[in-house]
Amino acid sequence: MKVYGDLQSGNCLKVKMLLSFLNIEHEWIHVNILDGETKTAEFLSKYPNGKIPAVELDDGRYLCESNAILGYFSENTVFLPTDTYLKAKMYEWLFFEQYSHEPFIAVARFIQKYLGMPKEREDEYLSLQKGGHKALQLMENQLTQTKYLVGNEMTIADISLYAYSHVADEGGFNLTRYPAIQDWCRRIQLTSGYVGMA
Amino acid sequence: MKVYGDLQSGNCLKVKMLLSFLNIEHEWIHVNILDGETKTAEFLSKYPNGKIPAVELDDGRYLCESNAILGYFSENTVFLPTDTYLKAKMYEWLFFEQYSHEPFIAVARFIQKYLGMPKEREDEYLSLQKGGHKALQLMENQLTQTKYLVGNEMTIADISLYAYSHVADEGGFNLTRYPAIQDWCRRIQLTSGYVGMA
Repeated sequence: MKVYGDLQSGNCLKVKMLLSFLNIEHEWIHVNILDGETKTAEFLSKYPNGKIPAVELDDGRYLCESNAILGYFSENTVFLPTDTYLKAKMYEWLFFEQYSHEPFIAVARFIQKYLGMPKEREDEYLSLQKGGHKALQLMENQLTQTKYLVGNEMTIADISLYAYSHVADEGGFNLTRYPAIQDWCRRIQLTSGYVGMA
Repeated sequence: MKVYGDLQSGNCLKVKMLLSFLNIEHEWIHVNILDGETKTAEFLSKYPNGKIPAVELDDGRYLCESNAILGYFSENTVFLPTDTYLKAKMYEWLFFEQYSHEPFIAVARFIQKYLGMPKEREDEYLSLQKGGHKALQLMENQLTQTKYLVGNEMTIADISLYAYSHVADEGGFNLTRYPAIQDWCRRIQLTSGYVGMA
C-alpha cells in the first residue's frame, strides 16, 4: 500500500498516526504541494480533487480525504466506536474538524509557517484567529469533561483533531490558554506507536 | 424527536430529506439564524457550536453536524453502504461537501439570497465562484460515470451534495453547464418521499 503525503501537514499526519497505532505496513511517498506535485495529470487521474493525503491500496483502488481514510482503516478497531450514537458523536467531531477547525488553525499556520507571513495575507491571518480560538475552546470544554473527545477512549476524532491542534502555536494560537487540550496532547503522545511530524 | 432547522438551509434540508425518505416521524422546529436563535444560552447549552440542523432524540441526547446526523439515521438502511471501501468513498464525498463545496456554493448563495448581495461582500462573492465551479465539475465527472456519487444506488452522499447543488444558481452557478448534475437532481426529485426546500 502507498500513502502520498507530507508529514508537516496535519491532514497527512493523521493517516500516519493511525497506521502507526495499528501497525499497518505502508510505503510513504513524500509529496511537495508547493511544487505542484498534487496538480500533475498523473496525480489528478487518481485523485481528481488534487489533495493529500491520498492512499493507493494494494488492489489499485484509491482513497482520499484524511478523515474518510481514518474511517476506512479504523473499521473494526478500537478507534471506531461500534455504538451508533457514539459513532455519530465521533463523526460530529470529524466534520467539525474540517469545517470549524482546520480552515482557521491550519490555514493560519500555513500562512505563518509555510508562506512566511506575506504582507498581503496578514489581514486574512488575523481574521482567522477568532474562529480558531472558538474551535479550541469547544474542544477544551469537552476535554474538561471527558479524557478524549468522545468519552474515555481514544477514537479517530482525537487523532484528527490532534493533528493541527498540537501545532496550533505555529498559527499564532497560544495553547497555554487551554490546559485540558495540553494534557490531552500529552496523553496522545504517550500512546504506544505514536509518531509526530517529521 | 425534535429537529431544529430552517428549510431554506441546505444543511437542514439534508436531514429533512433523509427522515422523509426513511419515513421517520419527527417534530420540525423552525430556527431563524439571522435573528440569533442559534446563539441563545439555551441553544448553546445543547449545541455548543451554535449551528443548525440539530437533533434532540427522544431520550434527550443531542446530535449536530448535518453529515453526522445523516450517518446516524442511515445506519442499517439502504442509504449507507455496508462495504468498507464503498462506505469510505461515501465519506470522501461527505467531507468534500463540507470542505470543498459548501464553503463556496452555500456561502455565495447566502450572500446573494439571504444578505441581498451587499457591496462589502461582493469581492468575497466573486472569489467563491472558482471553487464552486471546481466542486461542481468534480461531481459532474463522477455523475457521467455512475448514476449516483458512489455507484448506482443513492446514498447519503447524494442527499448531502444535492442540498446546495440543486440551488447553486441562487449563488450564481449556472447548472446548464452540468447536464449530468441536472439529470441526477431530477432523479433524486423523483424518488419516493422526496421533499424540497419550504
